[in-house]
Amino acid sequence: MTDTPADLLAVADLVDARLEQVFETQRATWAAVDPRLVEAVDELARITRGGKRLRAGFCYWAWIGAAGDEKIGDRDDSAAIDACASFELLQAFALIHDDIMDDADTRRSEPTIHVEQAKRLEVEGWKGEPRRYGDGVAILVGDLSHVYADQLIGDASVQTRDLWNQLRIELNLGQYLDMRSAASGDFDRATAQRVATFKSALYTIVRPLQLGATLAGPATPDLLTGLDRYGRPAGQAFQLRDDLLGVLGDEARVGKPVGNDLREGKPTELVAVAVERASPSDRSTLDGIGRPDLSREQTLAIIDILQRTGAVAEIERRIDELVDQATRVADDLPFALGVRETLIVFANYVAARQH
Amino acid sequence: MTDTPADLLAVADLVDARLEQVFETQRATWAAVDPRLVEAVDELARITRGGKRLRAGFCYWAWIGAAGDEKIGDRDDSAAIDACASFELLQAFALIHDDIMDDADTRRSEPTIHVEQAKRLEVEGWKGEPRRYGDGVAILVGDLSHVYADQLIGDASVQTRDLWNQLRIELNLGQYLDMRSAASGDFDRATAQRVATFKSALYTIVRPLQLGATLAGPATPDLLTGLDRYGRPAGQAFQLRDDLLGVLGDEARVGKPVGNDLREGKPTELVAVAVERASPSDRSTLDGIGRPDLSREQTLAIIDILQRTGAVAEIERRIDELVDQATRVADDLPFALGVRETLIVFANYVAARQH
Repeated sequence: MTDTPADLLAVADLVDARLEQVFETQRATWAAVDPRLVEAVDELARITRGGKRLRAGFCYWAWIGAAGDEKIGDRDDSAAIDACASFELLQAFALIHDDIMDDADTRRSEPTIHVEQAKRLEVEGWKGEPRRYGDGVAILVGDLSHVYADQLIGDASVQTRDLWNQLRIELNLGQYLDMRSAASGDFDRATAQRVATFKSALYTIVRPLQLGATLAGPATPDLLTGLDRYGRPAGQAFQLRDDLLGVLGDEARVGKPVGNDLREGKPTELVAVAVERASPSDRSTLDGIGRPDLSREQTLAIIDILQRTGAVAEIERRIDELVDQATRVADDLPFALGVRETLIVFANYVAARQH
Repeated sequence: MTDTPADLLAVADLVDARLEQVFETQRATWAAVDPRLVEAVDELARITRGGKRLRAGFCYWAWIGAAGDEKIGDRDDSAAIDACASFELLQAFALIHDDIMDDADTRRSEPTIHVEQAKRLEVEGWKGEPRRYGDGVAILVGDLSHVYADQLIGDASVQTRDLWNQLRIELNLGQYLDMRSAASGDFDRATAQRVATFKSALYTIVRPLQLGATLAGPATPDLLTGLDRYGRPAGQAFQLRDDLLGVLGDEARVGKPVGNDLREGKPTELVAVAVERASPSDRSTLDGIGRPDLSREQTLAIIDILQRTGAVAEIERRIDELVDQATRVADDLPFALGVRETLIVFANYVAARQH
């Protein structure tokens, strides 16, 4: 288990404090209008707590790097911290909506909003269908988080705002492709890589870095390209690790049942490699991927194929290569040594994290 | 049946052309990456077509009024048209998400996205639960529209952007209160008025007007207050007419079954007035409001109570008063005569529209 880097924890503290201010202001504003409105803010605050603040971390350190400073604490420009925090409200928005699509029960050790609110309808004895009500509240709380995220971006430069719009479009289209591919059974490698590029490389690493760099003033095309060249392999490694954990991970640590991604039919490179290498009889076993009623026995048979075809080993090798690649690019970035080291630590962290 | 005002149709043409450009650009961009992504843009374009562009209309004419001009066509500043169009993408976002919450089948004579996409899963023989897939795609397409709306607001002034953020928060919280009240059976007048203020007065009229006024340069507090004083009664009249149509409207014209709002249990002033005036036995009949299995007989019994208690007549009187009030305020706005007349026509239009 890899410990969370100190340079990420420090950003998380700054961002958490900012988020708490946002929620407190909103609570006070709406309590004066109608106390029932505060419930929506409370639900958002509940699910926003406890994130690792990865995207805020990348945003923050690119800002420090581009500003030519390297000590956290010396720079607490509130507009930049706001922008970092906005990534975490955007992430809350994305998670709340994704959890409806996946019908996930828990998130960050809390019951998901749609599950909690469906239960509320029943407990209160209200009218209507619990599922529809729960999903409806979760859609709205997610939408509210999206607006708060945008509000925190504030009066940003055109360059910052263009990146913000771009990454939000990529986020939604990446999720669409992910969901569509899981349904249609498009398990080819190109599709898996495209989804990973949208959701993990661009949304999680490249765009937060690039946006962070613009917070220090106009960022040059060279700097933006350099951050892209670091973020893509780091993001891909992050996704590949996530794919391995989603299939093979320790239930207690990952927080979801082993083989969960197999039942959901997530398009992953891991599965794509196995499909490419599988014998005809193994292929028919792999066809079970994406079936919600996949049995434990079938799950274990699929995992066996993933191991036996060498797909797992190939993905592990690929993660190592990608982290090496990200490390080499980070070393060449026009940032102070301390910031470059932080980015190298972050690449290793996202590629190896055990939860 | 009231004809759509020419000054609204003219804005609709400008806005529709701009929306088509947005969709075309997005289609071209994403077709080059992966043709499957274009499906999300196409679904959005399908459901965005055919709106009345009310919010764009209010935004446009306040802009013209504040700019001191009064002829459409003389002013086609693209940033202002973009802002008008952004209201219609925001409205598409809100409708797509509302339609999931209400499980509505059709919207603007098209099948709703969640219904269409649930059907697609079945037709294509894809894996998963049709309802979950349909709802998931609709959530994402709505989210995408929200981002496009924000993108079109563009590099706006701080005053414009503050209004934009404010109205989006009000929109989501108003919808939350609406849905929660329908479930919990809070049919009191204060709740109905609060929902109407959020969803019809502020979101549909006041904020589009205020935002439009800021597009011509900084708007004075006096002007913003004047627009608020016009928009609140006009918006309330709009909501009251909608409430009457939702219960009593001609099915063919309104496009949804008579009594639909009763089954959904929408909190309305119409029902609140009837509840206040009802005898104990009538009250127990009114308790059926919000039951999805409400029979046609029960629906007709409730409608009879709405008529018999004089609730319908009181709401009609109230609409007349509100339109008169909006008209008086419009006359005092510091706008050219032609723009003031347009706003008076619009207030009458939203209060009397038959579909």
